[in-house]
Formats: sequence, C-alpha cells, structure tokens
Amino acid sequence: MSPPAAVEPQDQGVSNGAPATLEPLTVGSVPARRAKTKVPTGVAAASSSDMFKSAACSTKPKAKRFDHLLSIESRGRKGSSLKQAAQYLKKPGLISLGGGLPSCEYFPFESISMKIPTPPHFSEKETIETGKVVTSAKYDIRDGKSDLDLEVSLNYGQSIGAAPLVRWVTEHTEIVHNPPYSDWQCSLSVGSTSSWEIALRMFCERGDYILTEEYTFATALEAAISLGVRAAACKMDDQGLLPESLDEVMSNWDATARGARKPHLLYIVPSGQNPTGSTHGAQRRKDIYKVAQKHDIFIVEDEPYYFLQMQPYKGAGAAPDAPPSSHDEFLKTLIPSYLNIDVDGRVLRLESFSKVISPGSRVGWVVGSEQIVERYIRHSECSTQTASGMAQIILYKLLDESWGHAGYFDWLINLRMEYTNRRNKMLEACEKYLPKSIASWNPPAAGMFHWIKIDWRQHPGFREGKDHAAIEDSIFKAAIEEGALVSVGSWFVADHSIPETDMFFRATYAAAPGDKIDEAIRRIGVALRAEFKLE
Amino acid sequence: MSPPAAVEPQDQGVSNGAPATLEPLTVGSVPARRAKTKVPTGVAAASSSDMFKSAACSTKPKAKRFDHLLSIESRGRKGSSLKQAAQYLKKPGLISLGGGLPSCEYFPFESISMKIPTPPHFSEKETIETGKVVTSAKYDIRDGKSDLDLEVSLNYGQSIGAAPLVRWVTEHTEIVHNPPYSDWQCSLSVGSTSSWEIALRMFCERGDYILTEEYTFATALEAAISLGVRAAACKMDDQGLLPESLDEVMSNWDATARGARKPHLLYIVPSGQNPTGSTHGAQRRKDIYKVAQKHDIFIVEDEPYYFLQMQPYKGAGAAPDAPPSSHDEFLKTLIPSYLNIDVDGRVLRLESFSKVISPGSRVGWVVGSEQIVERYIRHSECSTQTASGMAQIILYKLLDESWGHAGYFDWLINLRMEYTNRRNKMLEACEKYLPKSIASWNPPAAGMFHWIKIDWRQHPGFREGKDHAAIEDSIFKAAIEEGALVSVGSWFVADHSIPETDMFFRATYAAAPGDKIDEAIRRIGVALRAEFKLE
Repeated sequence: MSPPAAVEPQDQGVSNGAPATLEPLTVGSVPARRAKTKVPTGVAAASSSDMFKSAACSTKPKAKRFDHLLSIESRGRKGSSLKQAAQYLKKPGLISLGGGLPSCEYFPFESISMKIPTPPHFSEKETIETGKVVTSAKYDIRDGKSDLDLEVSLNYGQSIGAAPLVRWVTEHTEIVHNPPYSDWQCSLSVGSTSSWEIALRMFCERGDYILTEEYTFATALEAAISLGVRAAACKMDDQGLLPESLDEVMSNWDATARGARKPHLLYIVPSGQNPTGSTHGAQRRKDIYKVAQKHDIFIVEDEPYYFLQMQPYKGAGAAPDAPPSSHDEFLKTLIPSYLNIDVDGRVLRLESFSKVISPGSRVGWVVGSEQIVERYIRHSECSTQTASGMAQIILYKLLDESWGHAGYFDWLINLRMEYTNRRNKMLEACEKYLPKSIASWNPPAAGMFHWIKIDWRQHPGFREGKDHAAIEDSIFKAAIEEGALVSVGSWFVADHSIPETDMFFRATYAAAPGDKIDEAIRRIGVALRAEFKLE
Repeated sequence: MSPPAAVEPQDQGVSNGAPATLEPLTVGSVPARRAKTKVPTGVAAASSSDMFKSAACSTKPKAKRFDHLLSIESRGRKGSSLKQAAQYLKKPGLISLGGGLPSCEYFPFESISMKIPTPPHFSEKETIETGKVVTSAKYDIRDGKSDLDLEVSLNYGQSIGAAPLVRWVTEHTEIVHNPPYSDWQCSLSVGSTSSWEIALRMFCERGDYILTEEYTFATALEAAISLGVRAAACKMDDQGLLPESLDEVMSNWDATARGARKPHLLYIVPSGQNPTGSTHGAQRRKDIYKVAQKHDIFIVEDEPYYFLQMQPYKGAGAAPDAPPSSHDEFLKTLIPSYLNIDVDGRVLRLESFSKVISPGSRVGWVVGSEQIVERYIRHSECSTQTASGMAQIILYKLLDESWGHAGYFDWLINLRMEYTNRRNKMLEACEKYLPKSIASWNPPAAGMFHWIKIDWRQHPGFREGKDHAAIEDSIFKAAIEEGALVSVGSWFVADHSIPETDMFFRATYAAAPGDKIDEAIRRIGVALRAEFKLE
C-alpha cells in the first residue's frame, strides 16, 4: 500500500571526533541510537524514556513545574517502601529471598505466538496468504533471541511498562511529536479511560470544574461527574474548541455563582473529536495553547484518532489523493500535536492503540513532563499497577520486532486510506439520501464520526410546542423504526444547564462495511423525510 | 501428578419430571448446567453471574444492603448514558452507526496461539514433550469453533469481562466457595491492587481509618495512605488477626483522639498472609466474622495465596503427605473462605491469578453481593474499563477450553505439592543453619512467605542503647554482606505510631530454587551469628 521507508541513516550525538549532529530521532536513526544503550531485560527491570531519547532532547529547556495545580491526593503520594530493597539486587552473587515474585517455572505457557500481516500486505486476505507467525518463548532473553520474553512479561512488572516497550513508545513519540522541552517522559497506561481518570484525580478536588468542549466524549464526562467534578463548557465551531470562548469562560469566571474555584484542567480530543468529528487546525492549536498559558491551564489531550487523519475530501465521486509517498511525507500531513507545541510542559498526552491496533489490548501510554509522569506512575503503582504483560509481549512482537517503526507507519498509512474510503462512502451517501433543506454537515478530517446537524425548528412538532428533547427522541426512534441506529447529540452535552440550541446526530463509519453505511444513511433519509413531512 | 477428576454427573434444577436436586455446582455437573444457558458471544455482549450459577443459589436468602457504608463517590455513580442505545441493537436487520467500535478487519492478528501443558504433565520439561498448542483465530465464533475469539476479545468489552470468562469464574466460585446468600456476583478485575484501590474509594473518605493486621501488605497500606486513609492496627498471633483485638479497637474507638469516625472496612489476607505467612484457621474466621457483624464492619478478603495452602509440615526430613486423591478431597483440605461463611454479604473477595498462573496477566476477579459488585462495575467503567482482552482470550483458552475446571484443580494440586516442597526446604534450612537461641518461627501453612522472629534484645547493640530500627538495619545489611537479601518487618508495619516490640524478617521461598534457598539461609545464619556474637 505504501512505499518502503525513506531510510535516513545518521548517527546522533555520538562523539566520534565529529561534533554531535543533535537531530531529533527518525525512523532511520533508530538503530544507531539503540546501539548506544542496552535495553534492561530483567524481571521488573526499571527503565525510563531518558534511556531511549536522542541527545537532541537534552539540549532543550526543562518543563515548568505544576505543583500548584496538583490535587492534595497527588501531591501526597510517596514512593513504594519495598522498592528500596531493589538497590541491593545488583550485588554480585546475592540470593534474593526478598521480593514475593513467583517462579517462572510455574507459568503454564511455553510460548505465545501470533499470526500477523507482513507490511505492506495488510488486508485479512493478504495476512492469511503472506502473514507470518511470530513466537515469544519463555526463555528468549536467556537464549539471546529477544529483548522481551515470557519469563519477564508474565511476571510482575514496573508501572512504566516493560523496558523494550517503553523504548518503542519513546522512540515513536520523539519521531512523531518531538516535544520542545527536554524532560518529557512516557509511561505505559492501561488505556486512556484509566489515564483520564488518573489525570482527574491528579489535578482536581471534588467540587471543581474542568474545561471541556460543549459536546464531548460521554465517558470522559461521566468519569469527571463520578468524582464530583463538573464541566464548564466552551463553544465550538467546525474546528472544535473556540479559543475566544475558552478565554471568556476563564476571564469571566464567577467563583461565587459557580460555587467553585476557577478551573485549571482542559480536556480535549483535538483530532476527529468524539462526537463532533471536528479537528483543531494547526493555528487553532496555537491559539488555544496561548489561552492556556494566559490562564495557567493544564491540558489533557486525549488522542485516539490522531492517526485517523484522512486525505482531503474532494466531493462525491472524486477519488482520494494518492497515499503519502514516504513516511516523512506522511508525518508532514499530520497536524502538529499539542505535545509538539508545548514549550511549558503543560500538556499530558494520552496515547491509545484502541483505534489503530486493538481496543482489547488495554495498553496505551501517556507523555508529559517528568514531574507529571512521575506522579502518574506513583498513582499507577497503587492502583492499575501496570498494563497486562500478555498484551505487552504481543504488542512488542508486532510493533518492535516484526514491523518496527517503518512497518507501523506503513500500517498507519494503510489505515488512513481505509478510513478515507469509509468516510467518503458516508459523505456520498449523505449527499445522495439526506434532505439538504434540514440536514447539513462538514466533512470530517479525522476520526470515526460524522456529525449531522438537523434544523429541528422545521420539524412539525416544533410548531406544536414540542421541545428539543422530544423532537430529538422522535427522530432517533424514527430512524430505528427504519432500521438505522445513530447516537443523539444530547448524550454528549457537557453542561446540561445550558439549553441546546442546535440539534445533532452522530453516525460512525468505523464499524459497518461500505454497503451497509449506504443503506443505513438511505434509511435515515427516509426517516427524516417522514418526520419532517418533506416531499 | 493428581488423579483424574472424580466425575459426578448430575443434573441440577432441571424440571424433567423429578424434583430439582438443587445441589451446588460441582466439576461434574458443569456440563449439564452449561447446556441450559447459551453463553453470549457478541462484541461487548452483556453478561452476569446469574446466567451461570446453579439453581441452588436462588433458594438462599439475599444479601444485606450496605448503602450506609459506601462513600459519597460510590453512592453518586450513575450508569453510562451511551449504554441506553444497546437495547435497540436487538432489532432484526438494524444497521448500527451508533457505537464507535473499530472494525475487526483492522485488528492485525489472524490468530494467537499458546503452547501449554496437558494435565497432569505440568513441568516445563513435560510441557515441551507433551504440551499442546491451542489457537484462537479471529472468527472462531462465526465458524462455530469457540465461544470466544479475537473478533470479540480484541474489541471493546464490558467491564464485567467477556461472558465465557465470567462463566468460568462464576462456576469456579460456586464450586470452591458456594456463598451462603443468593445474589452474589463476579466481575473481572485488572488485578487485586486495582480492586483494593477501588474498594478503598467505594468505602472510605479522606481522613478515615481502615482496620488491618499490625503487619500487612505494604502496597495495600500505600494505596490507603495515598488516599489519606490511615490504618488502625489490630494484634496478630500465628493465625493472624486476633478477633479480641479487633473487637477492642472497635469498642474503644475514640473518635476525638483519633480525629476520625469509627472504621467500617477491614483489610485481610486470610491465607498465607503477606508478610507474616499466617493463615486464619476455620474457627478464627468465624470469630472474626462475628466481630465484623457486631460492629457492622465490611471485609475485603484479598486472597492471592488461597490455593497455596500446603500439606502439613511434619518436621525436617519427613516426606510430605501424599497429594489429595481427588478434587473433592483437595477442596476439603482448603480452609473455608470468608466468602463461604458470609451470610450477610459483607465480604468482597479479591481473586487473583498472580500466584497460580501469571502475575503478568493483570486479570483477576472480585466476588461480592450484587449491590457491591454493581458499584464496582460502575467504577471500572469510568477508570480501568476492563481487563485486557488479549489476556482474557489467553486465560480462556487455557482455563476453560483446554484444562476445564478439572484440569485447573489438577494444576493447583500440583502447585500445592511444589510449594510444599519449597516451604519444607526453607524450614529444613532454617533448622539446620539459624541459631535457635535468637531465631524462632512457625511453619507457614500457606503462601510464599516465611516470617522469622529475632530476639533483638539479645543483640549486643541493645545493651549499647541502639534502637529497634538500628538493630534491624544492622542485621539486614549484615545478611546482604553475606549475600542474602530478605525483607525487614518494619516495611510492613501498619501503624508506625505504635512502637514495634518484636523484630521480624520475611524470607520468600517462591522465587529461588531449592539449593539457593538452602545457601541463602546458611548465609543468614552466618550473618546472625556474627551480629549476635554467638559461638
């Protein structure tokens, strides 16, 4: 699907007589960087992104500290007392009767294998034909066959994750995002729902407000509400959050009327937002970041759809642009992340494999400043502990040992084209079947969601005095009656104290195949015409 | 290692003319029970233990409610608004553009396989020779080959877990524990550290006390302390928690002096406790439960070592008793759990695969009353979400499809004998090498830990005015100097405001092989003699 990586071999920061080039890491320079630091391979071996970043990182200024924004809970967390014993384990010949780790001879797995596609032959059919079986055996490390095996991944591990996977996510982060401060760190997570909940507990007290877009991810809202944290909603347009609205909410904050101090935590899904499908443009991101600096707001960017940025939509019937011709070109198509423009270290980025590999892995990672990620790891040690080692070994075999960064970018380019096709199918169906007099939309530039605006005031019920909720429900049920299920906008409203003026329905093109998307949108068209008594 | 299961085929609660026998589930009656309820197999299919319990369960009284003990956070949790759409998915022919689930064609795994031992040939050597490779392919459910496959387990799932694994843990729970009330439920967890943290947040407010044993699991303590929850320590003997001490702490609670309301949450590791290795006997459990009823205490029983209950220790050189001759006999050797005697539903049991299969799975489960487990699931939905589907499919293939309950009990009997041997090696080494004039111990009946008491007042430093901490550290360092690492008792002290009168060291026999255990204990003996200037 995509051409092989444009390999750019270059050494980085090595003192071999010549001055260090101090280029940020690229796909091509990964092998040279790896040659410099042996990855730790012991059971529960400690590691950190610092072991795997290029020398270019250390030339940057350090992140600011955000102690004043942390919660009582997070500030009070201490390290584990048992970890103090670990320092003695390095003594040669020492026999440890210290840690309560089970012996690997009692793990009832000799090996775990998986059949996976060989880049760039990614389809299910091609995987059957040209895929390969890769195997992790229990003692691959001892036998010199791998940096990670079942002896390690099936035992207890560090919260940060197994070192070889920490290396992979660190390298990926530098290649794609290259944060502008030096002391950034990665830690594996058990998925972004968990990471967001931990972030809420790290930054908020019960009774606080957070800042969100007026429509936002329902589970993120529910996590906040469960902790007694409310959402202060900011206005959006087709690029999502409006910086002027964020500034206004903060500048005019009335602590007495709100019954809460000024918020300091902003939750955003900048690319292909759930539910609106909106994507913050590059300039929009800079503008929002400036407002965050002005009001000292800490940003959580939840980015499961970042690599579902698609080819531009050129109208019904138009073939999509050719795929990016190299990994460099692919990376250039991506809108720079908040992490990439975060000179202060005021962003915690939540990374996920759910939309690009498998939601069932329950492995993701977070990136942020050393201070923030250290607090995150302390939190994990006493709660989620660490991502499943079974999932970690599977992802490691796939992403590092089999595909490498180059193969993963091939995979992502392939996904980009697949989602572009799906998105186009949905937009073409909408143009074909939906009554334009009452239905309107913007082509989504990323993600899985199409957000359809309905001019509900034209609904016959409106003249009869039916309210927004009743008409939304009537349309929702009419679509189901015709055999199509969509989500209603009101499920995603951040602040129910603000009456909804517009009406939206969310349709995903991720799950159903192309012909089903066409048929479902046709049915929705029928339902809308009947509801609005059109034609 | 163990004989085949004594199969007892019998139907349960089926109305085939004869009255229902209403026997609790046994290994033998599982197939008949399964024939009555088809396990849900869809993506993120809902399930509950009620689908899988025997009819005998429903004849029992319901659990009490514990609303008055729940935290503000837990009481306030609501269900997910998006879940309301799920009810419509049953409509025939409906096309869903509702849920944001990725299409399984983009999961880059055609299959996942594992090589596992065939019961009863469990050793690593036997696994290489007679083990078998089992495979989960992406579309096994569609192809009629399995109740769980990659299409389902690699996608999003319910917090309770994949239905076929919920079935397995429910059956296991009824076979082993058979709770005395009707409305018990199981939910998968992401491991017991997470479950304990969730329980703390479900039952405690910042500033509260919990009840613990005077020495307890350090990570459990750290989780509590991080949330601003302190430990009220109760005295122990060689069977762990003393019910009289628990009663005394509760009866004499001075809210003003403590600066906190009376506690209502008790944390215990009843079998092979970490760090003391103590195991609550059957009568001890009844006595503690009575005190819990008297003071309306809710009990969290954290039981990773339950199946590491060992054969009795008969003294140095004595061969261990023969293994249990049947699964029934094996189950009879196990001390009844708190869950088994919990007539009120005031116990949340934390189950773990960490010490019996693999800590790296990060899959466990909890058992409790419907009310408590429902709150647990609501909490999970907005935090950990669910256990890794990759780990779930691996455990399902091993525990259900390959071994079944019978094979798992064979495995556990095998582990019991292995740990018995390890424990015996350590005790024999202690008898051989440790100076009895200052070192004493009780043979652990379960778990991984040996708890060695040292008469620190005989240490030369004591006469010179050295305190407990200094002498403990001196012995700890002397052992390291000789090449043996153990854990010091003070790392596990629940309440540091109470001065330690005794001194202990914890040695595990789980990690090191037999000859290393012997050598390590010899080194500790040398260190002790030198420290105490003996001989």
